[in-house]
Amino acid sequence: MNILILNCGSSSLKFQLIDTDLARIDADTDLLLARGVIERIGSQSLISLIRQGGAVTKLALPLRDHRGAIEWLCQWLIAPDSDIPTINSRADIHAVGHRVVHGGEKLTQSLLLDTAGIKAIEDCIELAPLHNPANLDGIRAATAILGPSVPQVAVFDTAFHATMPEKNFLYALPYQYYRRYGVRRYGFHGTSHRFVAYRYRLLTGLARQDVRIVTLHLGNGCSACAIDGGVSVDTSMGMTPLEGLVMGTRSGDLDPAILEYLSHKEGMPLEQLLGVLNKQSGLLGVSGLTNDMRELLAEERDHKDRRSTLAIELFCGRVRRYIGAYLAELNGANSIVFTGGIGENSAEIRARICDGLRWIGVELDPALNAQAIGREALISTASSRLAVYVIPTNEELLIARDTFRCIWARDHEAV
Amino acid sequence: MNILILNCGSSSLKFQLIDTDLARIDADTDLLLARGVIERIGSQSLISLIRQGGAVTKLALPLRDHRGAIEWLCQWLIAPDSDIPTINSRADIHAVGHRVVHGGEKLTQSLLLDTAGIKAIEDCIELAPLHNPANLDGIRAATAILGPSVPQVAVFDTAFHATMPEKNFLYALPYQYYRRYGVRRYGFHGTSHRFVAYRYRLLTGLARQDVRIVTLHLGNGCSACAIDGGVSVDTSMGMTPLEGLVMGTRSGDLDPAILEYLSHKEGMPLEQLLGVLNKQSGLLGVSGLTNDMRELLAEERDHKDRRSTLAIELFCGRVRRYIGAYLAELNGANSIVFTGGIGENSAEIRARICDGLRWIGVELDPALNAQAIGREALISTASSRLAVYVIPTNEELLIARDTFRCIWARDHEAV
Repeated sequence: MNILILNCGSSSLKFQLIDTDLARIDADTDLLLARGVIERIGSQSLISLIRQGGAVTKLALPLRDHRGAIEWLCQWLIAPDSDIPTINSRADIHAVGHRVVHGGEKLTQSLLLDTAGIKAIEDCIELAPLHNPANLDGIRAATAILGPSVPQVAVFDTAFHATMPEKNFLYALPYQYYRRYGVRRYGFHGTSHRFVAYRYRLLTGLARQDVRIVTLHLGNGCSACAIDGGVSVDTSMGMTPLEGLVMGTRSGDLDPAILEYLSHKEGMPLEQLLGVLNKQSGLLGVSGLTNDMRELLAEERDHKDRRSTLAIELFCGRVRRYIGAYLAELNGANSIVFTGGIGENSAEIRARICDGLRWIGVELDPALNAQAIGREALISTASSRLAVYVIPTNEELLIARDTFRCIWARDHEAV
Repeated sequence: MNILILNCGSSSLKFQLIDTDLARIDADTDLLLARGVIERIGSQSLISLIRQGGAVTKLALPLRDHRGAIEWLCQWLIAPDSDIPTINSRADIHAVGHRVVHGGEKLTQSLLLDTAGIKAIEDCIELAPLHNPANLDGIRAATAILGPSVPQVAVFDTAFHATMPEKNFLYALPYQYYRRYGVRRYGFHGTSHRFVAYRYRLLTGLARQDVRIVTLHLGNGCSACAIDGGVSVDTSMGMTPLEGLVMGTRSGDLDPAILEYLSHKEGMPLEQLLGVLNKQSGLLGVSGLTNDMRELLAEERDHKDRRSTLAIELFCGRVRRYIGAYLAELNGANSIVFTGGIGENSAEIRARICDGLRWIGVELDPALNAQAIGREALISTASSRLAVYVIPTNEELLIARDTFRCIWARDHEAV
């Protein structure tokens, strides 16, 4: 089944086209047919397309909105120059899987969309006013373009964390704020943590109930997750993706009283200040240079830039503290797993984080660590008390599989 | 030397009268002559006085302000019915030591007050608008009542944390917020963490540089401190005392984005919302009953009150996570030390916190733990990988000693 995976941001669209079905899932032979990114939707959009073989096409085109972008994308997918022999008309796109950021407390599993499902996602807009509307735009555009008979599935970033116990998802606020307004920790990157936990089971042969690990999704957004019995019991992102680790442009943890102080000092309304905390803080804010960890490491190496080092140390120190906190939460663990752009590719950052974990018996193998760039690998020594793994994430693959499974379940429902 | 220790809150005054000098400090025989609390200053004030022998007097009197309260207190101290034979006139009060909450980045040691010193404390008002003005009221009132020739010393709650490295005190915000406005982690309860670290050295015979411990001040306010080489390297309270652990009425850690959401939902200005986070959250907010841990434990025991249990679990879980985080920060530690009202007196809370720390080899001795109520004790087994101690704090004693030492240093300055 050819499934189009859409991840709609406010002015961007990431997509993959994946061919999967029961046999492919079982054999782990799902087929990636094409992928790409469309940025700056609403003005002169930049399009990067990557074909199955790896050939990249870059284009600039005026695309007015998500609908325009998806319209253009469907045209390209069926056109001969996209080089996808199995896609020759829109009818060859059999289903659409959407990444949806916030599912609130009710949407705790991937969902075959109908009117009620769309309404339920709309009900969560308030919890993710920047993200859910773009996801809904994508859903409506896909319906308009591909027709209402093409099944669409929503896969929620929050869903994997629905297993957190109340003592971990509740903030120490007046309880009515939770009851009335849903103020609680939801967590994000759930599809990534879930995928990595699944690959970890395959790699180690452990049964789900025996998986007790700390997963670290370190990309431009970053989050840690404590996984016990194969399910999420705690995570560092909170009611929004702002809380927790230091990220590319997000501050992560902060004394909440700072908002009042800064809002007053800068004469900045709270909304605007939250924009600063989300978009101008983190690695970018501390270094004053870049949100890109590779550039910071280069600045440190080539120019001994003090604030680049400071940003890297803040980043690594925060990750290390969350590892300690989640080891305490889990009463110990089997393994630590790195994923995400930084986690998969930066042996140096992994080494700097783990260097402070000798107290708990973590011992990286420098050669294994250096070699593990963007691929699954054990990177700790045989005598390390905790195993450390690199496992590249693949959220799109999990969205494709969930999409297939939701459709399969509908078609095979017991009567 | 008879030293009056004053801890002025916005509408309260705690005091102790302590006789100390070089010989008493060396022999650990400082003499507590009297202590007490005056509450509700500004209306019908409630006064509790405790004499050296333990006899308690309770009074209600109209006291207009801190000056009125200190005036009344000095009268009582010299009166025959206070039962302090060595204090017969105001001249027998030889010095005053003040607890001052915020010393900012400049006031990193206890300070013999002069005009410049008072000005420097005024400069920190902005960082602690609720606390420093009351502390200054106390300083000015004491000057007016006892005369300018009686030396006064300020001991800062933040000072012990001045040794934190930048990578630990900096938030991941745009760097200019630190430079321009002093937005950083300062930490509080410093006098308590310092006193406990000092007693820990005496108890264990360790040299200062070998002290690597996590201290937990758990009272109505709560904070954790990572101490390495005898000095603070990290602490859970931040720019203000709001951040970190769950406290009696403070939320501790929170996704900062919640403030915008709640401010909008409740139609509440940010200032007011921060009042809720400081005064109606924490144990009180979650339980909806009380900020008093003893009452919560009784509710749980006698009525199986679900939200009381939830509040206790949030509290213990957060402490446990900070222990894990600071063990990671310290790359392991010798000991965990409990102090503060809850930390010193609640064997049950200590047990529930440590129960989740078996992974790192923490093993409480149930009998030792049960017996350690309000007194110094080792409460872990001989085979516990980390030692666990109870060490009652005594901030006033440290303020008295610092006051004496500052005066002594002035009188013995090299010429």
